[in-house]
Amino acid sequence: MSTMSSLELRTKITSEARLELWLEQVTVPKPAADEVVVRIDAAPINPSDIILLLGPVDPLKIHAGGTPTRPTASASIPPDRMLGLEARLDKALPVGNEGAGIVVDAGSDVRAFVGRTVAVRSPLGMFAQHRVVKPSDCLVLPDGISARQGASAIINPLTVLGMVETMRREGHSALIHTAAASNVGQMLNRVCLMDGIPLVNIVRSPTQAEDLRLLGAQHVLDSSSATFRRNLVGALEETGATLAFDAIGGGTMAGTIVAAMEEALGAKAASFSRYGSPVHKQVYIYGMLSPGPRVLEGNLGMAWGVSGWLMTWFYGKIDSATAQRLRDRVTNELTSTFASHYTSEISLADALSPEIIVAYSRRATGEKFLMRPNG
Amino acid sequence: MSTMSSLELRTKITSEARLELWLEQVTVPKPAADEVVVRIDAAPINPSDIILLLGPVDPLKIHAGGTPTRPTASASIPPDRMLGLEARLDKALPVGNEGAGIVVDAGSDVRAFVGRTVAVRSPLGMFAQHRVVKPSDCLVLPDGISARQGASAIINPLTVLGMVETMRREGHSALIHTAAASNVGQMLNRVCLMDGIPLVNIVRSPTQAEDLRLLGAQHVLDSSSATFRRNLVGALEETGATLAFDAIGGGTMAGTIVAAMEEALGAKAASFSRYGSPVHKQVYIYGMLSPGPRVLEGNLGMAWGVSGWLMTWFYGKIDSATAQRLRDRVTNELTSTFASHYTSEISLADALSPEIIVAYSRRATGEKFLMRPNG
Repeated sequence: MSTMSSLELRTKITSEARLELWLEQVTVPKPAADEVVVRIDAAPINPSDIILLLGPVDPLKIHAGGTPTRPTASASIPPDRMLGLEARLDKALPVGNEGAGIVVDAGSDVRAFVGRTVAVRSPLGMFAQHRVVKPSDCLVLPDGISARQGASAIINPLTVLGMVETMRREGHSALIHTAAASNVGQMLNRVCLMDGIPLVNIVRSPTQAEDLRLLGAQHVLDSSSATFRRNLVGALEETGATLAFDAIGGGTMAGTIVAAMEEALGAKAASFSRYGSPVHKQVYIYGMLSPGPRVLEGNLGMAWGVSGWLMTWFYGKIDSATAQRLRDRVTNELTSTFASHYTSEISLADALSPEIIVAYSRRATGEKFLMRPNG
Repeated sequence: MSTMSSLELRTKITSEARLELWLEQVTVPKPAADEVVVRIDAAPINPSDIILLLGPVDPLKIHAGGTPTRPTASASIPPDRMLGLEARLDKALPVGNEGAGIVVDAGSDVRAFVGRTVAVRSPLGMFAQHRVVKPSDCLVLPDGISARQGASAIINPLTVLGMVETMRREGHSALIHTAAASNVGQMLNRVCLMDGIPLVNIVRSPTQAEDLRLLGAQHVLDSSSATFRRNLVGALEETGATLAFDAIGGGTMAGTIVAAMEEALGAKAASFSRYGSPVHKQVYIYGMLSPGPRVLEGNLGMAWGVSGWLMTWFYGKIDSATAQRLRDRVTNELTSTFASHYTSEISLADALSPEIIVAYSRRATGEKFLMRPNG
């Protein structure tokens, strides 16, 4: 292939407190001997992509610019929302954590990949028409699986399997999950049902609770219920769960879970210890649906931890055989356990339309957008 | 020895919301073959003892009762302070986490201990005239070391060495310590100076800062200073500390430390990552000087943890050779690195005097009470 032109989404927050979004026209570099060129055909818009794309900007305040084929979008940012952005100021950042497409060119060492459909996860940004990556960033999809079917094959599936693997490694035997009506939550529910792992699902409305129960979930708690705290302690006594994954982040949920674990363990304790139960109780915060301070209230005992958890760092720490076993499970169950569903498809240019930005940044449970950079 | 009578301190919180303190007269049991009888000659009054002794009671509200030789003390507890006490209600609990004394009797397998001065740590409660314990609960003190010198030989010294050992095991190379003017703080300062470990000491007043500097501390930060946060980031950039031990517990300090670590690491980062620094930042909360919610504010990145830490559980997890090496260091340096100083000595009966309760429960930095149960 000779020089090939390609469009890529960029986001920038300037020191003058403006958000700028545009499509950058680039020349696709020639792949090195160990690199492949992927034509990105499908990329999901995940919550973490939206955080990077818009920063602290209110989607309703975004204005359109540019031309229909080369649109831009921009917004001004109130000074009090510029805090914590120092590290990204004035940098033109690519966006899109994952995607899938066809290998259209490859370096001399990796020619065998040409023509294969692969899922890709790379910090380079998948909201782009082409990406040059290494095969180690790719998951080769089985024959017959489309880019659309494989677009979300990496982040959510490997997050869910990482949670279960973390549970086993750290000696727990059951799980708690918040924001459990999410795509990740439904996937985790399927894996836990299949693997016989007791799972306590915490959702935020009676409707979400009902939806999860219809999917076979056995322990579903609605945090908006007046009896939530008591129900939580009951579910923890029943399941013995001492490990939670929390997607909310800010607020009181992580602390409520630890205190409820401690209460459930205390109810079973034979004698009083001033230090509480010696059983370690852990909450991993893996998302930030709610920004703001994390408030840990109540009696947590002394054997507890609240920590950040990031899927890619977890896979960086485990041995490669285990990581491969988990990736193989994803490709084997991509149209069942790990299937993702999309409610809308948009183009690269659509992603800069103020109306469409408002729509995909709602992040409503059950709604999921798929980008078609070459569509 | 025939039957021997002994007095022991007891604390009880009743379901009727009353605190009751008294001296229980017991018959010292005959030791089993593997047990020793220790006459407790000296026991420090540690913050954790006071928490157990008084529960949520305001020391100024305590009334005296009983007789001069068999005093009692009591107080009523406001209903709103009875929360979280369920596990101890109506239980007569012994008090006193550690102490030292002479082995006055022993079972057939452990006769060699008779006459030795030992430090003891046991949940049985050292605010007592005699205790029957196993040698594994004891640290045999070197010849020439008195019970007074050995009274605090276990909890604070092993806490400090446990912090340093935790640092090494978890791959950190420097430490942060809060409430650093405390007895533990001064001891940690001595160990870190001796071992060449960079230590960031956080204290709560200019006077405490000056005191610690006079003891050779290199990094001392006063959290009451207007420039505390900036100074903290500077000290973390300089030392590279990514592990803190926090004695405060409630409030914002643990979160402030994590956020400052993240800021210090971010300042050194070559490029922007939306997940922040991949270096794990950890705060262990080992005390509860300030009860109440733990509030974690600001940008912590994703590689962080805040957890409870308890010295005895830490030693329960490490191999016995390492634990022995650390105990040996304590006995070897008991009159230097690990020396404790007491400002007042009281009897078992004094511990129930309302005026003396007010004095020792102040927990003023630099003030430390020693109990002489047989004095």
